[in-house]
Amino acid sequence: MRRPDYGRREESKGCTMSAVQPVLDNLDANLEASLDRLFSLVRIPSISTDPAYVQECRRAAEWLAEDLKGIGFDAGVRDTTGHPMVVAHHEGPAGAPHILFYGHYDVQPVDPLNLWEDDPFDPKLKEIEPGRKVITGRGSSDDKGQLMLFVEACRAWKTVHGGLPARITLLFEGEEESGSPSLRPFLAANAEELKADFAMVCDTGMWDRETPAISVGLRGLVGEEVTINAANRDLHSGHFGGAAANPIRILAKILGEVHDETGRVTIPGFYDGVEETPTQVKASWDALGLTPEKFLGEVGLSIPSGEKGRSVLELLWARPTAEFNGISGGYEGDGFKTVIAAKASAKVSFRLVHKQDPDKIRAAFRAFVEERLPADCTATFEKHGGSPAIQLAYDSPIVTKAKHALSDEWGKAALTIAMGGSIPIVGDFQKMLGMESLLVGFGSEDDRIHSPNEKYDLSSFHKGQRSWARILAALTA
Amino acid sequence: MRRPDYGRREESKGCTMSAVQPVLDNLDANLEASLDRLFSLVRIPSISTDPAYVQECRRAAEWLAEDLKGIGFDAGVRDTTGHPMVVAHHEGPAGAPHILFYGHYDVQPVDPLNLWEDDPFDPKLKEIEPGRKVITGRGSSDDKGQLMLFVEACRAWKTVHGGLPARITLLFEGEEESGSPSLRPFLAANAEELKADFAMVCDTGMWDRETPAISVGLRGLVGEEVTINAANRDLHSGHFGGAAANPIRILAKILGEVHDETGRVTIPGFYDGVEETPTQVKASWDALGLTPEKFLGEVGLSIPSGEKGRSVLELLWARPTAEFNGISGGYEGDGFKTVIAAKASAKVSFRLVHKQDPDKIRAAFRAFVEERLPADCTATFEKHGGSPAIQLAYDSPIVTKAKHALSDEWGKAALTIAMGGSIPIVGDFQKMLGMESLLVGFGSEDDRIHSPNEKYDLSSFHKGQRSWARILAALTA
Repeated sequence: MRRPDYGRREESKGCTMSAVQPVLDNLDANLEASLDRLFSLVRIPSISTDPAYVQECRRAAEWLAEDLKGIGFDAGVRDTTGHPMVVAHHEGPAGAPHILFYGHYDVQPVDPLNLWEDDPFDPKLKEIEPGRKVITGRGSSDDKGQLMLFVEACRAWKTVHGGLPARITLLFEGEEESGSPSLRPFLAANAEELKADFAMVCDTGMWDRETPAISVGLRGLVGEEVTINAANRDLHSGHFGGAAANPIRILAKILGEVHDETGRVTIPGFYDGVEETPTQVKASWDALGLTPEKFLGEVGLSIPSGEKGRSVLELLWARPTAEFNGISGGYEGDGFKTVIAAKASAKVSFRLVHKQDPDKIRAAFRAFVEERLPADCTATFEKHGGSPAIQLAYDSPIVTKAKHALSDEWGKAALTIAMGGSIPIVGDFQKMLGMESLLVGFGSEDDRIHSPNEKYDLSSFHKGQRSWARILAALTA
Repeated sequence: MRRPDYGRREESKGCTMSAVQPVLDNLDANLEASLDRLFSLVRIPSISTDPAYVQECRRAAEWLAEDLKGIGFDAGVRDTTGHPMVVAHHEGPAGAPHILFYGHYDVQPVDPLNLWEDDPFDPKLKEIEPGRKVITGRGSSDDKGQLMLFVEACRAWKTVHGGLPARITLLFEGEEESGSPSLRPFLAANAEELKADFAMVCDTGMWDRETPAISVGLRGLVGEEVTINAANRDLHSGHFGGAAANPIRILAKILGEVHDETGRVTIPGFYDGVEETPTQVKASWDALGLTPEKFLGEVGLSIPSGEKGRSVLELLWARPTAEFNGISGGYEGDGFKTVIAAKASAKVSFRLVHKQDPDKIRAAFRAFVEERLPADCTATFEKHGGSPAIQLAYDSPIVTKAKHALSDEWGKAALTIAMGGSIPIVGDFQKMLGMESLLVGFGSEDDRIHSPNEKYDLSSFHKGQRSWARILAALTA
């Protein structure tokens, strides 16, 4: 945990930056106590998706509210039709920004329990390799560990300085792992209270265990289920084969035409709103040296399937996709049945980037299918969600300041990266509260969130607290 | 049941033809007794696929052997490792042909039982519309009704003439509805005994309820299951989409290329061995006036899916197909899951005609798939049976004579047709016993074989007996 270049970098910063050093010292001194607090929170099995844990979810919310009150926040547990929200406010200096920090206190289920090496709700500090300690337990990373980093940073700042450097609102939800049904109604009903200058979202990861990262892009998602309907019943392929329309053949033909030979999506208008990634950003990604062999090798593959001529990171972070997530039709059991099915269906999803419009993409896909149908067949469609991509500026003042703060803490240049997946809350903050988010997190690829043996590196837990203190300092300097 | 032109046609035939009239009279006089015999056989629930009915299958075989002994056949129940065969021999006049007649005494299961209007094993004579009576019950058509026609024709001939006009061997199997596992071993072990000048197979149907037909073409079948293997585990489409190979996309692309825009199969060499149907045969099919709307209309379709420029009957009877009988991969449940599957698979079948080689077709399909795989994916194949098509001569002396006999009985020109499906025994007789088959049957499209409420038209049962008597006369004249 030595950071040899720490002192040197510190000197170049402004007045609030000099205020951060005692906060960092305080965090170092209280690491063990902060661990105890995280362990207490992890011990509460707040599994939001399982009705058996309703009371445990409330208990986690109450634990957080109590802890925040102890720091000096005006904190409360706020009922919803589902699990409660925790909302906490703390005033800041006049003229300081108002920051909304978001996290979630609910966790994923733990089955299969027999695959856990340790009790998921009895967290431990464990040395998994020489010099590398991790915190075990469900939620140790996602998201109790990550959200407590910021709470600890606030606690230390308050202890050292008697106040906080910004006006801070905390919003911790208890339904993130079960679809966040109460979140939008809650944002709408409490917009005035929750609207801040910008948000911070702590649900993301680092580039690797030594390299901090800020996510500025999140791909959007359009989900569609298409069913091709042919004959009014299943047919015998001996009696009807060659004459009757086969919906699997029609579906395969249509899906087979969604991509061209270069991996580009052929649906008209699909690339409307897609922007080219700035050259220097692409260069910074290329500098990471993530070859297709390295990225795909761990899952047994080696050749990028997307548009040719793009790097793996560009494909994942800055290019849209059309993926087929499921397909079914006809006889799928063991053996063989010479049936011509009445229908066949596929689940299709599109990952969106930049300014692609989910509604237009959905309509374009449906038209693409309809145009390719034989006149005696029909297609039916089912909508499975749609959200646009989030693209934040690569170089806004907030991102730039946070990058410096992270670089200072980790002794390595922080990266601006993107994420292949979606974090819907970021879009909700944009649309409903008119604010952008800063996405910083300290999770690792190997944290096994949602799986048995979830863990969080102690280095993430310790340096993550210090990182948030530095970010607060940088943003309020 | 009046056949106004019967007498006139009769006069033009040779001496054996004059021998047939008393046989026909005898069949007419004994129609009720023949119905009683069929009812006795239908009452035995000889469901071959269900182990609970092993004894019932044997009972059906014994019933048939006893009945045949009563006619004067040297008949016996012959054990196999499965259900027994019935084999019966009767000598014929010197120089007369030796004919092997094949049928099967086993039946399909009857579930769902609640959909039957009458007890499937308590046959009845039922008037379903004015002047139209049918025999109800499982096996009334497939194949107990059909095989008893020939038995009754033999019985009447023997009664009237004290002998039969040909040397006749009967082979009734008890496993046709469960894959005929014992048939080939039995044919091999008893080839000398069973080999005849030609075979008669009674498992087919009429063109319509008034128009008799001889089937001269049976499509062959190649079954293949192809699985595309990509990553070594299911992936999250957010984390890997656009980078990792998607096996559903690969499978859809490959299947989508199997047919071109004209409905032709694009697999190299696929049409090797496919012959053009003689112009006069095509003309006779066209004369039937079976429009796509008429044929496909009953299943809710209207546009032939096969090669453009071919009639529906040509597509069904004389053209090969590639059909996709099942497809599966990824998430197939309710809702949506943004998964990229590790694998996806399809069941693919090819209906073959004329001289297409099943082994070459299978190999060509596998090569077609392999050539289209990304280098980091693999395909695995599972073989699900393969048999060549059977194409008998449209105008052999046997077919021509049988056509005349059928035309005489039904007062309508008999058709030479083909079948979209397969009857493997016909190929086995060709390959293993070196004999061709005459395929004549009196089933109707609406007999609901394999379904609840199976029936057999009384007109098929009565005129079918007379038809076989006439065919025997014609072939031995």
